[in-house]
Amino acid sequence: MRVIVPLQSFVLGHGVHHQIKGQLSPSPSSSSSIRSSIVRTALVSSSSPAVVSSRATSMYSHEHESPGHIGFSKCLDDPYDRTTNPNGVVQLGIAENLLAMDLVKEWISENVKASLIDSEVSRLVPYHPYDGILELKTALAAFMGQVMLESISLDPSQMIITAGATSAIETLSFCLADPGDAVLIPSPSTRGYDRNLKWRAGVETIPVPCRSIDNFRLSISSLELAYNQAKKQGVKVRAVFLLNPSNPIGNLIDRETMHELLDFVTEKNIHLVSDEVFAGSNHGTDEFVSIADVAHTEGFDKTRVHIIFGLSKVLSLPGFRIGVICSFNKNVLETGKKFARFFSVSVPTQRLLVSMLSDVNFVQKYIEIKKKRIRRMYELFVEGLEQFGINCFPSSAGYYCWVDMSNLMRSNSEKGELELWDKLLNISKINVTPGSECHCVDPGWFRICFTTITEDDIPIVMERIKRITDKQ
Amino acid sequence: MRVIVPLQSFVLGHGVHHQIKGQLSPSPSSSSSIRSSIVRTALVSSSSPAVVSSRATSMYSHEHESPGHIGFSKCLDDPYDRTTNPNGVVQLGIAENLLAMDLVKEWISENVKASLIDSEVSRLVPYHPYDGILELKTALAAFMGQVMLESISLDPSQMIITAGATSAIETLSFCLADPGDAVLIPSPSTRGYDRNLKWRAGVETIPVPCRSIDNFRLSISSLELAYNQAKKQGVKVRAVFLLNPSNPIGNLIDRETMHELLDFVTEKNIHLVSDEVFAGSNHGTDEFVSIADVAHTEGFDKTRVHIIFGLSKVLSLPGFRIGVICSFNKNVLETGKKFARFFSVSVPTQRLLVSMLSDVNFVQKYIEIKKKRIRRMYELFVEGLEQFGINCFPSSAGYYCWVDMSNLMRSNSEKGELELWDKLLNISKINVTPGSECHCVDPGWFRICFTTITEDDIPIVMERIKRITDKQ
Repeated sequence: MRVIVPLQSFVLGHGVHHQIKGQLSPSPSSSSSIRSSIVRTALVSSSSPAVVSSRATSMYSHEHESPGHIGFSKCLDDPYDRTTNPNGVVQLGIAENLLAMDLVKEWISENVKASLIDSEVSRLVPYHPYDGILELKTALAAFMGQVMLESISLDPSQMIITAGATSAIETLSFCLADPGDAVLIPSPSTRGYDRNLKWRAGVETIPVPCRSIDNFRLSISSLELAYNQAKKQGVKVRAVFLLNPSNPIGNLIDRETMHELLDFVTEKNIHLVSDEVFAGSNHGTDEFVSIADVAHTEGFDKTRVHIIFGLSKVLSLPGFRIGVICSFNKNVLETGKKFARFFSVSVPTQRLLVSMLSDVNFVQKYIEIKKKRIRRMYELFVEGLEQFGINCFPSSAGYYCWVDMSNLMRSNSEKGELELWDKLLNISKINVTPGSECHCVDPGWFRICFTTITEDDIPIVMERIKRITDKQ
Repeated sequence: MRVIVPLQSFVLGHGVHHQIKGQLSPSPSSSSSIRSSIVRTALVSSSSPAVVSSRATSMYSHEHESPGHIGFSKCLDDPYDRTTNPNGVVQLGIAENLLAMDLVKEWISENVKASLIDSEVSRLVPYHPYDGILELKTALAAFMGQVMLESISLDPSQMIITAGATSAIETLSFCLADPGDAVLIPSPSTRGYDRNLKWRAGVETIPVPCRSIDNFRLSISSLELAYNQAKKQGVKVRAVFLLNPSNPIGNLIDRETMHELLDFVTEKNIHLVSDEVFAGSNHGTDEFVSIADVAHTEGFDKTRVHIIFGLSKVLSLPGFRIGVICSFNKNVLETGKKFARFFSVSVPTQRLLVSMLSDVNFVQKYIEIKKKRIRRMYELFVEGLEQFGINCFPSSAGYYCWVDMSNLMRSNSEKGELELWDKLLNISKINVTPGSECHCVDPGWFRICFTTITEDDIPIVMERIKRITDKQ
């Protein structure tokens, strides 16, 4: 007996090409198959796919077209290239540093052989500890000391290697909070946090506004207010998540603020997570200090302090997907190391990085050259914008300027900001991040990344911005 | 003013060595610091670390010493090595295949240069799609066709690359079920599933017993029973998770059973996840058929069918952490691709594997040689055990024998099984997996992996087992 297959049912509704084969096939069990095929045809004829979980449904049903998504798509569809597509959209919306890729290329071409080929295969192929090989943790601890100017000193046993900082943030949210609990995030802050905490861990984020009138400095009274409001609504606040250096502002948190923050989390008996992925990107004169240093030297309870770091920013290796959790809490470490089975990094990549990070001369040269190149681009960008009367916040870290364009808005509101963003995207053809995407409460601020282009592109970008300022 | 730091408070209670530096430091804000340091000293003196989430607490507070953990530790502490430690514990408890590592080594040493060094750095370093690069998906689709004897044909858009099969299982559980929901797992089955579904996704697992008296064949009536019992208790069953080829039994699911299963999940309007990571490890004469093939050729609604695959078993590359979800459900694909930000695989590893998987001659040679080597070890092992009157289930896939040692037990119970396991570990000094660890309801069965040792080790293992059989 042969069962005729209703071919139409295989064509899925989302543009998936499917190779159809074996249209007719022998049935192994005649009687049951006849019965089955009747049920089947009836059920298959429904065009909607089988129902998924509520948490999965919430992921796509509430999705709206955010400026981030729209801008990103425009850049993919029509990417600027000075020679091949000079009228394309310039991507200034991603904090990715392409300015020092030549140094990485040089290192890889000279050293891959030694790190991988000459390595024993038993050091690459079999199972390894999910939370990272000891050699990488040791190399990373030394590297972090070098990058953070010895503001931090870590033991490898206090580290968990993750698949990028994103996975580190998610893991900490699983460890520190339960579904429905919340964390406070001094803002403006990168929108990625909302996704990283909410999507699977189910943890809510509460942005705590830092205002332009205060130079975007964090005030403890705002934290108190947000904490108390959450408490009133029956929401448990479990941690403060801090970005230092800040993204999108590019400023550094000073020791005094860290003191106050540590006092705050101690008093509330909650945690402090310091995301320090932009350490090593500071290009100004301000000193970067890790929260680990302050907590340590000032005698705070370090079991409530956790640091996130990674190589996507400092070494501009986002494709390598390397993040790290540094924690001083044995329960977090124990749990996080177990969770590492879900995001374990491939060993060949770890081995490659052990070699790269242990090459102290390369690291020193890389950071020095990178800082000079970033600073040069930053200064050129700030000067360029000043021509049009556009001012930047005095940043000293990060791959972006934090730009006040409020004088170009038609109305002093989020609507006005998004109108201006739309003009920048569609008239100037540059993709930037509006402050509202970063929970900034003052309209008119934009994050503009400058490390995705070269020095020669700056006049072109300025010319594009002029298209709008001229009309004003 | 200088604050004296209570040094003791930095010493954590879990054996972490910490480098103490900067014991004295200037305080930036005198009055607040005095107040702070009083609070601080009082709080820090408490020796317990800051409280973590309930889900994290449940991870370590309910932990018990399972046979798996104990055996693994013994192997780490005193690992057998024919020349350097001939009296050590032999690791037969991990389904890791070391028999064909020489072939991988050869390929890597000949091809790393072309895959990595000669590659443009822009193809390795920047951000890439989190769910895997298209080239790897394409290569993997072709490779799966080759391994599964064209029992499956996939479009790259239906694939999500994950950090090993473990992360694929977790991701599907987030997509298909909500916290507190359950999935049915025909058992014996590897215990890893409980962790992968429960720990972060909060999904319960319900083992559905397959009995030795039925040759461990899955019966739909057992599934029905488990489904109805769960329903009665108010638990929503969202899927059946199937292991094909089975781990620990090493048998293959036949087409008729797959038909019945597909009918079952269709009738209940739930999902079917088929974990096919051991496809390509079949060494017997039975044919492996993917559930994708059956669902496709027989006209079932494929939107409820999802396949898990990976390279840890088929190419014995667990250190590379490569898994894949193949799904025909657009909502699962859309959500899973978003979740991929949490487990994205490093691009250098992906590039290396594009080259390896595209090398059709290597793949063909590897699989042929590997199968011969596995089959040889399997037959030697079965013969060796038969000498002692110990019978193995007739497996045709996997890196293990499923061994009936019930005649060596002092009592026909789980207790008797664990006593025997203890003797095997401490008298025979071999680490094996007791059936109770795999939710096997019939006492006396053990999974013994044979691909972690060489042919020359077999007489030694048999000699060790004889220590026990002689005493019987």
